[in-house]
Amino acid sequence: MARPKTYLDLLKAVDSFPYIDIARTPNDDHEESSYYQLLLPSDPRPHGYMLPSVVKKIPWTSDFEVSHDCPRTVQVLDKSHGRDTAAACNQAFASVIARAIESGAFATLGRPFREDYKILGAKYPSVQLLRAAAPLFGVCCRGAHMTAYVRTDEGMKIWVPRRSAHLFTYPRMLDTTVAGGVRAEESPFECIVHESDEEASLPTDFVRKHARACSATTYVEQRNSGFGGEFGLMVPVCLYLYDIELPFDIVPTPRDDEVEEFYLWDVDRVKKALANEEFKTNCAAVMIDFFIRHGIITDENESDYLEIISRLHRALPVPTSPTAT
Amino acid sequence: MARPKTYLDLLKAVDSFPYIDIARTPNDDHEESSYYQLLLPSDPRPHGYMLPSVVKKIPWTSDFEVSHDCPRTVQVLDKSHGRDTAAACNQAFASVIARAIESGAFATLGRPFREDYKILGAKYPSVQLLRAAAPLFGVCCRGAHMTAYVRTDEGMKIWVPRRSAHLFTYPRMLDTTVAGGVRAEESPFECIVHESDEEASLPTDFVRKHARACSATTYVEQRNSGFGGEFGLMVPVCLYLYDIELPFDIVPTPRDDEVEEFYLWDVDRVKKALANEEFKTNCAAVMIDFFIRHGIITDENESDYLEIISRLHRALPVPTSPTAT
Repeated sequence: MARPKTYLDLLKAVDSFPYIDIARTPNDDHEESSYYQLLLPSDPRPHGYMLPSVVKKIPWTSDFEVSHDCPRTVQVLDKSHGRDTAAACNQAFASVIARAIESGAFATLGRPFREDYKILGAKYPSVQLLRAAAPLFGVCCRGAHMTAYVRTDEGMKIWVPRRSAHLFTYPRMLDTTVAGGVRAEESPFECIVHESDEEASLPTDFVRKHARACSATTYVEQRNSGFGGEFGLMVPVCLYLYDIELPFDIVPTPRDDEVEEFYLWDVDRVKKALANEEFKTNCAAVMIDFFIRHGIITDENESDYLEIISRLHRALPVPTSPTAT
Repeated sequence: MARPKTYLDLLKAVDSFPYIDIARTPNDDHEESSYYQLLLPSDPRPHGYMLPSVVKKIPWTSDFEVSHDCPRTVQVLDKSHGRDTAAACNQAFASVIARAIESGAFATLGRPFREDYKILGAKYPSVQLLRAAAPLFGVCCRGAHMTAYVRTDEGMKIWVPRRSAHLFTYPRMLDTTVAGGVRAEESPFECIVHESDEEASLPTDFVRKHARACSATTYVEQRNSGFGGEFGLMVPVCLYLYDIELPFDIVPTPRDDEVEEFYLWDVDRVKKALANEEFKTNCAAVMIDFFIRHGIITDENESDYLEIISRLHRALPVPTSPTAT
């Protein structure tokens, strides 16, 4: 049997991109540093970093200017003629992504995500692109995760779903009680509200009233073959975290086909499942953050306490607000 | 009247050391990069970074070897002859600090801290040095902060103390309900337990049972004159965070002479005090983290949400565990 994983092992598997300063070392000896900066119009801040092999294969349109000089850049051009820059960017992304899908050159684009993701921190509100394409452009992918728990006489218990066997990624692995990608047009909270209904049949009014925002975890992935996409993509990720305490008579129940079953587990059972790598990798990070916030993992019982905490909140290499530098 | 401070303004004042990779850019053009690495015996990982002006003024003993080559280093020598390396290091620090105090060259050493701080992440357990000297050596300073709150019919209220007028730093400013430096020989939790008694007269049994560890905030200060010490010191800081919900009949009351008065304030009053810079700078960070964890600051009401969260959990430039690299 494999050695049980430590919490830090689990986080390193999620926050897997090397700790290099990708923004400041654009062309030194690191292989990773040859990523291209994705630039939006009139904004010098890179909103993503793209693999050279990806830049080479994308069937670029005239909406983009690719420069192979140092620093290497992919510039979205402003074809709005002074009207709606965001709409022009969105049209540019939509066209080039349609061509890339047609080309059949990208496994990543085969993923069944039809909604758009917002480009976080863009100066123009609602610059967005197809969710499945976000990792190719190296822009931040946003999710919302809510952990539901129950206080019992035997201590805290946590609602843990098992993913359906037919899912494209991580079939039959354990997940966060409720989780989903944050669509361009919604807030993280609204995402949790509708996913609570769709995935777990939780009453909407109850969720609106009792779901509590309690932080976010941020990390940077280096995508490997497990995602069924291109190898080596740099993907900044932000997961907005929510907790909800459920009474005994509100029981999560699968509604859509993403969840096979919900378990109500005590903390020790959840710890065991983490150590055995039964959780989807980023859901392990969410559970570890929950354990930190609820005093289950402490400095007294975990020698990696501080490293765990800083890895759960990595400074992302892309701006996270319109005014961030 | 001054412009009200944003949460991010307040955090930038705490996490004030530039975001340079001090470990990897030891001798380039940045002024900050000329810091000396503090090295313990048989351990290549710098445990602190020292200002050149400080290294120059310290009356070094033969327990230390100072190298002005690249990378600049201050190496603690192992004079234990194979016996107790930690004890030898502690003796080395004690001697040189005694000489430095005698020299009168360091304002920082005038601070009335008589306890020792542990050097975080040292391979040898309990390597420690005088708390007042820790910032000179650039080693991590550890504190523990507990926020006490009460649930009332009008919403959450928070116990906020005002610091005494005679204190060396931040007199009459607002503070965390209970806070203190973590002494070398105690755990963060034990620190909170005894400080709760000494500073706020909270019943020890109640605190032991109900104080909940709920994360840590980590940041890097560049010390300015406000601390009454040397200018430009790089100080990594880790504050272990605790929450405690108090019933109405447990009321914090000053016991030692550090607190003038406790206020029971609602969230809006605390927000106003933050914006007006009424809080001791690092206590503002603790309160902001509390607001994040309790769903008071959310992505929906704060555009800097993600930047705030990552700044509250900066990766420190020193190892935080014996096995960290």
